Amino acid sequence: MKAEIIAVGTEILLGQIVNTNATFLSEELASLGIDVYYQSVVGDNRERLENLVAVAEKRSDLIIICGGLGPTEDDLTKQVVAQHVGQTLVRDEAGYQNLLAFFKKRNRKMTTNNLLQTLVFKDGQALPNTTGLAVGIFFQDKLGTAYLLLPGPPNELNPMFVNEAIPLLKHNFPQEDFFVSRVLRFFGIGESQLVTELSDLIEKQTNPTIAPYAKTHEVTLRLTVKTRDKKIGIQQLDFLENQIQKRVGHYFYGYGDENSLAQVVVNLLKKQNKTVTAAESLTAGAFQATLGAISGVSEVFPGGFVTYSPETKASFLNIEPVFLEKYGTVSRECVEKMAGQAQKLAHTDFALAFSGVAGPDPLEGHSVGTVWIALADSEKIKSECYHFSRGRNDIRQNAVMTGLNMLRRELLS
Amino acid sequence: MKAEIIAVGTEILLGQIVNTNATFLSEELASLGIDVYYQSVVGDNRERLENLVAVAEKRSDLIIICGGLGPTEDDLTKQVVAQHVGQTLVRDEAGYQNLLAFFKKRNRKMTTNNLLQTLVFKDGQALPNTTGLAVGIFFQDKLGTAYLLLPGPPNELNPMFVNEAIPLLKHNFPQEDFFVSRVLRFFGIGESQLVTELSDLIEKQTNPTIAPYAKTHEVTLRLTVKTRDKKIGIQQLDFLENQIQKRVGHYFYGYGDENSLAQVVVNLLKKQNKTVTAAESLTAGAFQATLGAISGVSEVFPGGFVTYSPETKASFLNIEPVFLEKYGTVSRECVEKMAGQAQKLAHTDFALAFSGVAGPDPLEGHSVGTVWIALADSEKIKSECYHFSRGRNDIRQNAVMTGLNMLRRELLS
Repeated sequence: MKAEIIAVGTEILLGQIVNTNATFLSEELASLGIDVYYQSVVGDNRERLENLVAVAEKRSDLIIICGGLGPTEDDLTKQVVAQHVGQTLVRDEAGYQNLLAFFKKRNRKMTTNNLLQTLVFKDGQALPNTTGLAVGIFFQDKLGTAYLLLPGPPNELNPMFVNEAIPLLKHNFPQEDFFVSRVLRFFGIGESQLVTELSDLIEKQTNPTIAPYAKTHEVTLRLTVKTRDKKIGIQQLDFLENQIQKRVGHYFYGYGDENSLAQVVVNLLKKQNKTVTAAESLTAGAFQATLGAISGVSEVFPGGFVTYSPETKASFLNIEPVFLEKYGTVSRECVEKMAGQAQKLAHTDFALAFSGVAGPDPLEGHSVGTVWIALADSEKIKSECYHFSRGRNDIRQNAVMTGLNMLRRELLS
Repeated sequence: MKAEIIAVGTEILLGQIVNTNATFLSEELASLGIDVYYQSVVGDNRERLENLVAVAEKRSDLIIICGGLGPTEDDLTKQVVAQHVGQTLVRDEAGYQNLLAFFKKRNRKMTTNNLLQTLVFKDGQALPNTTGLAVGIFFQDKLGTAYLLLPGPPNELNPMFVNEAIPLLKHNFPQEDFFVSRVLRFFGIGESQLVTELSDLIEKQTNPTIAPYAKTHEVTLRLTVKTRDKKIGIQQLDFLENQIQKRVGHYFYGYGDENSLAQVVVNLLKKQNKTVTAAESLTAGAFQATLGAISGVSEVFPGGFVTYSPETKASFLNIEPVFLEKYGTVSRECVEKMAGQAQKLAHTDFALAFSGVAGPDPLEGHSVGTVWIALADSEKIKSECYHFSRGRNDIRQNAVMTGLNMLRRELLS
């Protein structure tokens, strides 16, 4: 079962809108066990759309075309596909009544071009539009190739696909197999190193598959198994994950697409009934704002300090100016003092402190990307120096994640 | 001049990531006057990529292929296109040195698969990668068809396209007509209201065109004129902008794709030699982190406070606990006191304070989305109550931008 998705719309080719329909449809089809081999975008142009449909017919069993079902001169999808498959266009009575009701309700005059939106293929199936006016179409030709025509606006396409198209697809293309997947999240290891560590597993992968993705300062692995039995699928994933954890489990921090280091850290703090504060120079509040994004963080985070200048380091954290002058603000001594003072002043179990050079210029003789991070509790203070590359905001973000990971490790130790 | 964009990556076909590269490249090509006729996506699969390149070669003069230049077994783009155009792959010396330096700096062992990233076409041009390791390639075959191979990660693709590919494309494919565009940025007005205010201008647009885009808590208008004479184009844009400013100039805050409210505020503070601090409850450091993202902000921002709990509001800002108990923390009195105290403690010209309910639960009887923001200087304190909708992080972000805009207005008054 090979599917492809064609989006019709010049505005996509001009970069004015993002083709989120393709993303939505691809994800939905994957969960139905239907493989998407191609996504394409073509403008509102009869000839090029015709050519693309002809190419698609040769390589795919299911062709989903979205966009171009509206009432304007630019909307050509229905006409082009009807001609290609030799269908005449006829009015869909339910769609016509929906159209009349729409204009009546708004007390607006219906122009005749709107009738275009209610036309469907003579031997096709009409898909009602509950959030708009353009009726969708499902049609299967004599060779079994299926065409699914959907409206372009996501708020019309999404419900029509979920409520109308999915039952049709399940009925017409029953898939014995479906997918079960699991996302593992890693911090502190690059994509290429992770792939190298797992190269033999990745090379021989067929089912389950292992897909690595580099995210911002972290890497995820998506393990996916095609199965007819969910229980067996989960066992296969367990077995594979076990092999992975043995090799790179040191860098593993959690599961799931929606997870994050901050979420994991907040969960651990809550579980252990501990609190954290921060004194941020380099990161200027980004560490605390990242914690603040997690719902329920107030249980574990009372607040903290943004000490960007030497003066605020001295006055907010009660550090002697001569101390800062002696060691400089980008130093082990300074960052450890910041963490220790923040922990005392905020009365928390832990305090993180960040100081470094975000750039564009070096500072105190230290190159851009030099970052000191300290972690204090009531008994001890640890610190580490890092050298991050890339731009200003990458350095700051990397520092935030590294600080979160230091705290995570401490909480697990 | 017909161009098309091919993105390579199974993760796009599975709906796991959105194909934002196509959007970015399409927009850039439009501004160069190069028409994009097709966008396609294909998986990490040799045969299907080969077939797609063969189709593209027949219909396009410029084929841009992004993704699949990395070090893993899945990365096939270079090899497939090299074979298609009959090129051997050779090492790019600059890319090789960049790779060595990268691993040396991190003290990490370079695995041989990384060398793949430094291979280029024998008769092609190497495009250096300033934010990653995979070298890009530009190659023109004997019939003049051009191939541009770019890395998949947007933070590598974008600078490589802007800094390396655009000059090459301008040189190799000079266009008689080109586009001049101007981006106007608005805060405090929704997209639909903006479009309504300008509806007659938008309806009759041909050249220049007006394209509205809703961004996160702001709206931009891109005015684009197709012209052969830059001077005349700019005059046309001036005339159109003037009409727009007359109607919605109240919400206008700046020009340009790369601009932001924070950048405008930092520029104004620098120009007026003023400084700002903050006391953040709701936003937990996000306001200060947003300032911190702007290069050179240390001139105008010494640091500030994150006072998430009532205890830190009291202790960090020296506010009597009874005061907080009396008025509650989500109140005009509290947020004004926070701003006033922060301004005094940090010795700045201005202080912003934020308090409110990010959710998911109501707080002190106030519904989710209730936000108080205060702006203090040494003489007076202003405050406003807002009711933002949507989720936790939208509320916090909206508060940050609204605070920036309060300060911007104050600096301009």
